Amino acid sequence: MKVALFGAGRIGNVHAASIKMNPRSELVAVTDIVPEAAEALAWNHGITAASADAILADAGIDAILIASSTNTHADLIEQGVKAGKAIFCEKPIDLDLSRALDIGKMVQGYDKPVMVGFNRRFDPNFAALKMALDAGEVGKSVLLTVTSYDPAPPPIDYIKVSGGLYRDMTIHDFDMCAFLFGMPETLSAHGACMVDPLIGKAGDIDTAVVVLAYADGRLATIRNSRRAPYGYDQRVEILGSKGTLVANNVLENTVVKSTNEGCTSARPVNFFLERYMRAYEIEWQVFVDSCINGELVPANIQDGINALALAEAANLSQAQGRPVAVTAEMTRGQELEPWPCRGGGF
Amino acid sequence: MKVALFGAGRIGNVHAASIKMNPRSELVAVTDIVPEAAEALAWNHGITAASADAILADAGIDAILIASSTNTHADLIEQGVKAGKAIFCEKPIDLDLSRALDIGKMVQGYDKPVMVGFNRRFDPNFAALKMALDAGEVGKSVLLTVTSYDPAPPPIDYIKVSGGLYRDMTIHDFDMCAFLFGMPETLSAHGACMVDPLIGKAGDIDTAVVVLAYADGRLATIRNSRRAPYGYDQRVEILGSKGTLVANNVLENTVVKSTNEGCTSARPVNFFLERYMRAYEIEWQVFVDSCINGELVPANIQDGINALALAEAANLSQAQGRPVAVTAEMTRGQELEPWPCRGGGF
Amino acid sequence: MKVALFGAGRIGNVHAASIKMNPRSELVAVTDIVPEAAEALAWNHGITAASADAILADAGIDAILIASSTNTHADLIEQGVKAGKAIFCEKPIDLDLSRALDIGKMVQGYDKPVMVGFNRRFDPNFAALKMALDAGEVGKSVLLTVTSYDPAPPPIDYIKVSGGLYRDMTIHDFDMCAFLFGMPETLSAHGACMVDPLIGKAGDIDTAVVVLAYADGRLATIRNSRRAPYGYDQRVEILGSKGTLVANNVLENTVVKSTNEGCTSARPVNFFLERYMRAYEIEWQVFVDSCINGELVPANIQDGINALALAEAANLSQAQGRPVAVTAEMTRGQELEPWPCRGGGF
Amino acid sequence: MKVALFGAGRIGNVHAASIKMNPRSELVAVTDIVPEAAEALAWNHGITAASADAILADAGIDAILIASSTNTHADLIEQGVKAGKAIFCEKPIDLDLSRALDIGKMVQGYDKPVMVGFNRRFDPNFAALKMALDAGEVGKSVLLTVTSYDPAPPPIDYIKVSGGLYRDMTIHDFDMCAFLFGMPETLSAHGACMVDPLIGKAGDIDTAVVVLAYADGRLATIRNSRRAPYGYDQRVEILGSKGTLVANNVLENTVVKSTNEGCTSARPVNFFLERYMRAYEIEWQVFVDSCINGELVPANIQDGINALALAEAANLSQAQGRPVAVTAEMTRGQELEPWPCRGGGF
Repeated sequence: MKVALFGAGRIGNVHAASIKMNPRSELVAVTDIVPEAAEALAWNHGITAASADAILADAGIDAILIASSTNTHADLIEQGVKAGKAIFCEKPIDLDLSRALDIGKMVQGYDKPVMVGFNRRFDPNFAALKMALDAGEVGKSVLLTVTSYDPAPPPIDYIKVSGGLYRDMTIHDFDMCAFLFGMPETLSAHGACMVDPLIGKAGDIDTAVVVLAYADGRLATIRNSRRAPYGYDQRVEILGSKGTLVANNVLENTVVKSTNEGCTSARPVNFFLERYMRAYEIEWQVFVDSCINGELVPANIQDGINALALAEAANLSQAQGRPVAVTAEMTRGQELEPWPCRGGGF
Repeated sequence: MKVALFGAGRIGNVHAASIKMNPRSELVAVTDIVPEAAEALAWNHGITAASADAILADAGIDAILIASSTNTHADLIEQGVKAGKAIFCEKPIDLDLSRALDIGKMVQGYDKPVMVGFNRRFDPNFAALKMALDAGEVGKSVLLTVTSYDPAPPPIDYIKVSGGLYRDMTIHDFDMCAFLFGMPETLSAHGACMVDPLIGKAGDIDTAVVVLAYADGRLATIRNSRRAPYGYDQRVEILGSKGTLVANNVLENTVVKSTNEGCTSARPVNFFLERYMRAYEIEWQVFVDSCINGELVPANIQDGINALALAEAANLSQAQGRPVAVTAEMTRGQELEPWPCRGGGF
Repeated sequence: MKVALFGAGRIGNVHAASIKMNPRSELVAVTDIVPEAAEALAWNHGITAASADAILADAGIDAILIASSTNTHADLIEQGVKAGKAIFCEKPIDLDLSRALDIGKMVQGYDKPVMVGFNRRFDPNFAALKMALDAGEVGKSVLLTVTSYDPAPPPIDYIKVSGGLYRDMTIHDFDMCAFLFGMPETLSAHGACMVDPLIGKAGDIDTAVVVLAYADGRLATIRNSRRAPYGYDQRVEILGSKGTLVANNVLENTVVKSTNEGCTSARPVNFFLERYMRAYEIEWQVFVDSCINGELVPANIQDGINALALAEAANLSQAQGRPVAVTAEMTRGQELEPWPCRGGGF
Repeated sequence: MKVALFGAGRIGNVHAASIKMNPRSELVAVTDIVPEAAEALAWNHGITAASADAILADAGIDAILIASSTNTHADLIEQGVKAGKAIFCEKPIDLDLSRALDIGKMVQGYDKPVMVGFNRRFDPNFAALKMALDAGEVGKSVLLTVTSYDPAPPPIDYIKVSGGLYRDMTIHDFDMCAFLFGMPETLSAHGACMVDPLIGKAGDIDTAVVVLAYADGRLATIRNSRRAPYGYDQRVEILGSKGTLVANNVLENTVVKSTNEGCTSARPVNFFLERYMRAYEIEWQVFVDSCINGELVPANIQDGINALALAEAANLSQAQGRPVAVTAEMTRGQELEPWPCRGGGF
């Protein structure tokens, strides 16, 4: 399977490595708005940089991997669909929910896989937790808690174009809730600026607790912070009728030092590249499987829209200081019927 | 210090043991509405059962320990104050906030210790967490999570007179939040009946998530369930600007068994008697210290009122599906000035 | 059951508290070669100090608890047997194996319980490990490792009269091996002076590894050090055909702090009083049960002899730099038949 | 750097992947006595299988990686040296110590890297432990324990040609002791057949405890079993004057399930491929660094000889039931001067 990569930045390089490691996929082209970045990545992989147009026009290219900046995602999905490519797109589809809904309509019935990069679904720890949950090992679900703290806030310039905490960072946690518990009935978001006053000045928050209430009484809580000085804190905990499942952090190593000061283990791994490296490899493998075997992708455009709808509801809840209902219109637009489509589908 | 005990039930027996273990306090009398219970406890401790009136009238008795049923607490505090006794009263002061406020006014200026039994403050694990927090070991507080799951729900007859989850069970967690973070500005409660439909039929909930928002942006989350089949789940976690503190569960023993099934440690200890036995001993020791040394008690009537006010706010929030402001009137009545008093004071 | 205590030092006070906590035993007398120590303990418990002779002559005293210095143990057991008392004696019976064998012969057929204070058998963690082992949870035993490090060496004056590391400290670990695996066929001891040169100068070691080889191929390893600056390190690990059991240390509390430095839990509790307080209570309870119900004591004179024999074998092995056979003569003297006796028996 | 691979079995495939992942090394040829195995690996990597002679004669090949069966290692090292290749050889050099000493003499003064594949030195957990040790974080070393249990014994046919437990399995642990503590003065080996009687019938053992005594009093203990049904148990523990360092097992994932049965985490990863995958990548990276930068290899022929000498001493100790001295002659032959050489050297 021949693959072209859009975006040669940090995450583009991660995906390029996953493509290389997979014996069934081959990286054949890369493009980036910064030509030097594209050329560096191309040189590393023994290929040449190309233009976006050339890639889309090349019938020998089976799939595109969109790892460019967020504001290009929706356009590139549209162009990829028109060019008949299988598409893997980094989250989010777009910062604007109505634009994402347009993309959803567009891919309706499209017969190639369109997958959204919710990498955490493929983390071996969260996947093991979901498998145990689905196997009924703790009975019927009651409470879910998703903890997600970054080690340190991004640069303030990034904050300004990020779309805000809920669409930039919490979106992963919204997807984790949807992955494990489905879509809630209402959502209450509580945010604050506790880490850096400049983030508040930029109109954003850096700390949040969001409660999702489900129609059957289940409750999910998301805890977010832009700063956990001990590393990337990524945990999921589920209380069920028969017990509790916790996916704990991955530590840098297994050494424990006991001294007069106490017993000290290593920090959690520092950030997403360390924590989710294996998840990136697995999600790519799953996408390749979908392309080759025609299986449905496990994170599709609808999943991308769902997470975005929850982020918008969180913004509204926080602004108005009240719970917000999560309606079918938010995630389906005016057309309420399911939109089945192969792979990329609804 | 001579002590009389009101209530010879389960918790009365726990307190009797704490009195015995403390070399500076002596149990001299016990009373209970079930004479057999009083006589059994009296026989065990080599004393004789007495009437409540006789106890209150006995000038040789320095302190009373109120461990009788909730609906007697407020009356007994009043009578104890009139009789000039030092008073240790199990939580809650009363199920009715206005009655508790009356008690608050009454003890104003009273010159003997009046302490409320928020035993968890004296748990060595939570106490160690608070000490580390106060020492600045994780910097400035940001997020607090209090997890409190009972192993199994109480009998439905108890549920019916309990005052509801928030006043019966969450009240301990409200006090833990107040102990660690102070009083919040607003409170949002989300409850559900997930454990036993009979609890719902009795008009109560058995599962809850409560979010407390503080004036300075800090957030606290309480997670509650009436059922954790693996034992009493009692954890506290605080994210600060420099790190995270977690007080984990106490396990039955330290044995880990590794087999083909995985690596299994013991369950958390089963319930509050096992988990908080040491806390009961320490809280009694602290009360005796207050009586003898004249120090302020670390859990006074105001603390009891504060926790009750949060429980009432939670009931209101849940009923109306919106955040509720926690006002000074709720915890002080119409008289807003602080009510200093030795020991029992505001 | 009326009890008299020999020895009012640190461990005597621990046992006095256990006697007090047990509703079926009553401390009625205490004696000590330091009269002030006996009087202080007596005053604390509302009794009066007595002479050893008066205690032994008092027919109203059912049992004696020997917690005086090691060199008095054997004599007091003899006198106690002659006086017809039930006897609880701190380990070791004597530093001299042949003297202990004499005691063994003397108690042969004695019809009252004679128990040796191998407190670790009653530690809830080691007891849980043994219960799991006996229940076959890890199949057939293969390897045993007993780790036993003190937080710091005792004063050099104590070292000089201690009988040496193997008889003073390792004796507990020899008993743990005997408790879990029985008596070995051979023993190889490797010792060194690594902690304090003064200990070496006094002719003793402070660090050791001892390997016990069993007739059926099982192997046990003891690791000893007089210095573990992080607290009392007391662990047991067993590999069986189906898995591994580990009894880990007891920590001071359950708090974990995560910062940029790593994730730090509390130290293990500092020393034997903290770690084995509960074990002391339980061993006393078991002794009282044996006295009242006529059950065999779970740690008898033969157990005391066995541990002492292993210590002597270790001294020999280390001196000669070779494995030493552990023979029946060492633990039975010339009389090889079992010496059954109620409670105290062989 | 162009690399040829000898051996296309399981471990050969692991090394081929490491070569591929390293951007500075390129796999250009492979050979195996089973042509189909060589061809399959070659096909997977887009290269062609070759004969051993052709590889050695090809001046374009910079380095050879020897992952063929043990009995070919010494010959291939000799041929590689004659052909002027840099050499990476799987452990052991040979099952025969005198043959390994011959190889040692032969590489003396050779100016290309010759590295022995003691992969565990490069495990991130053991490497972190060594770094902490060398940094003095637990003070001066006192006791070392290396635990190494395989999940299940190999086929009996493998056992028969393995050279015995000490040379086949414990050799890694001997190297770990040498890596952390250097070479001991004496060694006492205790072995037994506890897992499978067929192993005993084949003249081998499957369970062992080995004690290494160092000239300065330090002691090291190795625990071995061919069967740990819960997975690959690979731990290292060091007691120092200021504390203890433990490198614990790597678990399959971080999920903990708490139910009425207890709190269960995942098993340790199953075997060496899972546990040491990252170590294989790192050791290859280090070898490539040595080739390119001229640095000394961190596991050379002398290290291979040292581990083999300890294995021979263990065989002798076990056969004679006594401690065995580890002499300079064992590891240096009759020539006692150090044999410095670049990379491969002594």
